[in-house]
Amino acid sequence: MSDHRPQRRARLLDSVARQRAESILVSFLPNVRYLCGFTGSNGLLLITPKTAILFTDPRYEIQAAQECDCEVKIVKGSPWPAAATEARRRHVPRLALEADKVSFDQWSAFASQLGKKVSLVPVRELVEALRAVKSQDEIAAIRRSVQVCSKAFTQTVRKIRPGMAEFEVAAELDHRMRMLGAEAPAFETIVASGPRTALPHARPGAGTLRPNQLLLVDMGASVAGYSSDMTRVLHIGHPGTRARALYHAVLEAQLAAISAVRPGATCGDVDNAARRSLRKAKLDRYFTHSTGHGLGLEIHEAPRVAARTETRLQPGMVITIEPGVYLEEFGGVRIEDTVLVTETGVEVLTPTTKEFLVIPS
Amino acid sequence: MSDHRPQRRARLLDSVARQRAESILVSFLPNVRYLCGFTGSNGLLLITPKTAILFTDPRYEIQAAQECDCEVKIVKGSPWPAAATEARRRHVPRLALEADKVSFDQWSAFASQLGKKVSLVPVRELVEALRAVKSQDEIAAIRRSVQVCSKAFTQTVRKIRPGMAEFEVAAELDHRMRMLGAEAPAFETIVASGPRTALPHARPGAGTLRPNQLLLVDMGASVAGYSSDMTRVLHIGHPGTRARALYHAVLEAQLAAISAVRPGATCGDVDNAARRSLRKAKLDRYFTHSTGHGLGLEIHEAPRVAARTETRLQPGMVITIEPGVYLEEFGGVRIEDTVLVTETGVEVLTPTTKEFLVIPS
Repeated sequence: MSDHRPQRRARLLDSVARQRAESILVSFLPNVRYLCGFTGSNGLLLITPKTAILFTDPRYEIQAAQECDCEVKIVKGSPWPAAATEARRRHVPRLALEADKVSFDQWSAFASQLGKKVSLVPVRELVEALRAVKSQDEIAAIRRSVQVCSKAFTQTVRKIRPGMAEFEVAAELDHRMRMLGAEAPAFETIVASGPRTALPHARPGAGTLRPNQLLLVDMGASVAGYSSDMTRVLHIGHPGTRARALYHAVLEAQLAAISAVRPGATCGDVDNAARRSLRKAKLDRYFTHSTGHGLGLEIHEAPRVAARTETRLQPGMVITIEPGVYLEEFGGVRIEDTVLVTETGVEVLTPTTKEFLVIPS
Repeated sequence: MSDHRPQRRARLLDSVARQRAESILVSFLPNVRYLCGFTGSNGLLLITPKTAILFTDPRYEIQAAQECDCEVKIVKGSPWPAAATEARRRHVPRLALEADKVSFDQWSAFASQLGKKVSLVPVRELVEALRAVKSQDEIAAIRRSVQVCSKAFTQTVRKIRPGMAEFEVAAELDHRMRMLGAEAPAFETIVASGPRTALPHARPGAGTLRPNQLLLVDMGASVAGYSSDMTRVLHIGHPGTRARALYHAVLEAQLAAISAVRPGATCGDVDNAARRSLRKAKLDRYFTHSTGHGLGLEIHEAPRVAARTETRLQPGMVITIEPGVYLEEFGGVRIEDTVLVTETGVEVLTPTTKEFLVIPS
C-alpha cells in the first residue's frame, strides 16, 4: 500500500488548502498510519508542501525507519514540542490540527509552543474522508480479513456443542483467526447465548450453551491492519416459531438494506430500508442502533450508516450492514455482513451463509 | 469491587472541590468504569454532591442496568447534550471536565451547550490519581491476572520449538490466557526472535524461530478488567557469552530497581537504580525507554516510573519494572515483572522464574 502514500499526502494537502492552511500536523494514529505507514503507539506526522516528517520516540527508532516512506525524527519525551519547533523553523504560516482528536489541554499547550508566528487552524475528518474510499490494495486487505473471519467461524461452528462456555467459543474463534493469518481480532469477539443475545454488546461469559437457545457471534479479523466485521445467529437445537420469525424478519431487513446500497444513495436511505422492513413485522422499535458503519484501519470509521445521514455512498466505500432486534428476556438477532460499494451497486464481501444454522443439541 | 464505588465518587468530589468545582462530568471510559462499573464503549458519568447519573445509548440499556450502581439515562445519539441539559437543570454552578481527555471540539461544543450559568472547570488526572492506589479487591484481581499470564507462559514454553512462527507462539499464549480465565490479552502480545528482539514493540511476524537466537515474549492478561504485564527472554539453543552477559546485566538492573521500590521512594529513584546498574556494564545508553509504569484498568496508567519523576510510591500502587537493552543487529533483552508497593517495601507479583530459559534446538 506504500505506493499510494505520497499521493494520499498530496490529496490531504488539497483538503487542508480548502480550510485555508498550507500544512497539517496529524496526531490520530490510524491517520498517521494511513499517511506514512507507521504502526507504533506514539507518533506525530507533520506534512508541509515540501516534506513529511514523523516524530516518534527512541523505542520506535528501528521500526519507524523500516515502516515509513518519510523523514523520521526521534525525540525523547513528548513529540509535540519538537513538532512545534520544526513548524516554526520552517516558517509554516498556518498549520492545521485535528480539533476533534486533540485534547483541549494538548491543543492549548501546542498553540503556546507554536508561538505567534504560526497560526493553528482547527480541521476535522479530513483524513477520515480520504480513508472512507478504499484503494484496490485496501480492498484486497479487507477481502483477506473477511476470508480469515469467515473461515475461522466455519471451522469453529463444527466444534460448538451444548455445555461449552461462551468464552471457550470466543477463544476458539480468536485462535483460529490468528492461525489463519490475523494479527488480532478486530475487536473483542462477542459470543452470547440465550437471553444475553439481547445485549447488543455482550461480553462472552462463563455461562454455558444450553439447548433451545439462540447463540449470537459477532466477530472480525484484523489482517495487515484492516478489519472485517460479521454477525451470525445460530440456534442450539431446533428453533421454535418465535425464534424463526425473528430471524427471518431480521434477515429480510438486512437483505433490504443491502439492496439499497449503490453509489449515490445516502447512508440514511440504506438505514431506512432496514427500518421500513422491520416496521412491517412490527419490530422496528426493538432495532435500537444504526444499520452499519464504515470499516478499514479502524473497526468503526466513516461513513456512519444511520437514520437521516446525508452522506452519499461512493464506489470503494466498505461498510457493514447489521440490523438487529433485541427482545429483553427472550433474546436478540443481528445479521451482519461487510459489503463493498461498487461502480454499479454492491458486493457482499462476507462469504458466510445466512441460513439459520442449527447446532445439534 | 462495587462496594467501593460510592466511596470513590465521594473522594473524587473532594478532589474536585480542591479545584473549586462542585460536580464533575467524567468521560474517559476507564474512569467511568472505576466510578460506576459501566464497561460499555459510550458513556458519560455526571457526579454531583447529590447524585451520580450515567448517560449512555440504547445498545447498553440492559447492560448498564446490570452493571451500574448509579442512575442510568438512555439517550439516543450523543450523550453530551443530555449531560449539559441535566447540569443546567440541576443548577450546577461549576462543573469539572477532564481537559486532558476531552477533544478541543468536544470541549467547545459542550461549553456552549452548558450556556452561561454553568462554568466549565478544566481538571486533569483526578480519577487517575485515585486509581493509582489499588484497593484490596483490585489487588486481588491483578493477582489473578498475573497468575493467568504466568501459567499461560509456562504452558506455552514447553511447546516452543525451533521452526515455529512468532505469530504461532503469540496465538498459543493468547489462547491459553483465554482458557485460563482472561477476557483478553491486556495488549497485543509481543513475540520477537533474533535481531527483532531489538525492537522494543515488535509485532509477532511470520518469521520462524531459529537456533542460536534470542526470543523475547512480552505479554499480559486482562482479568475482570485488570491487567498484568510480564516480559521474559529465552534463548533457542545454548546462549553464547554475549547473550549471557547481556541477560545478566539486564537482570541485575531489574533486581536493583525492584530493591529501590518502597513507600516514599520517588519513581525517579527506582528508574535511576536500573540506569545506574546498567551504567556499570556500559549499557545504559542502550536502555532507551523508562523503567516502568502503573497498571490496572489500563495497561499504562499512573504512576510513570521514569527518570526524574518526583511521584512518591505509596502502598497499594502496582507498577511494572522492565529495564531493557537493545543492540541493533544483535538483539535485545528486557525483563519485566508486575510488582506491588507494600507497607514495608515491595512484593513481586509475577511468579515466573527469571532464569535465562533455554529452548532445546
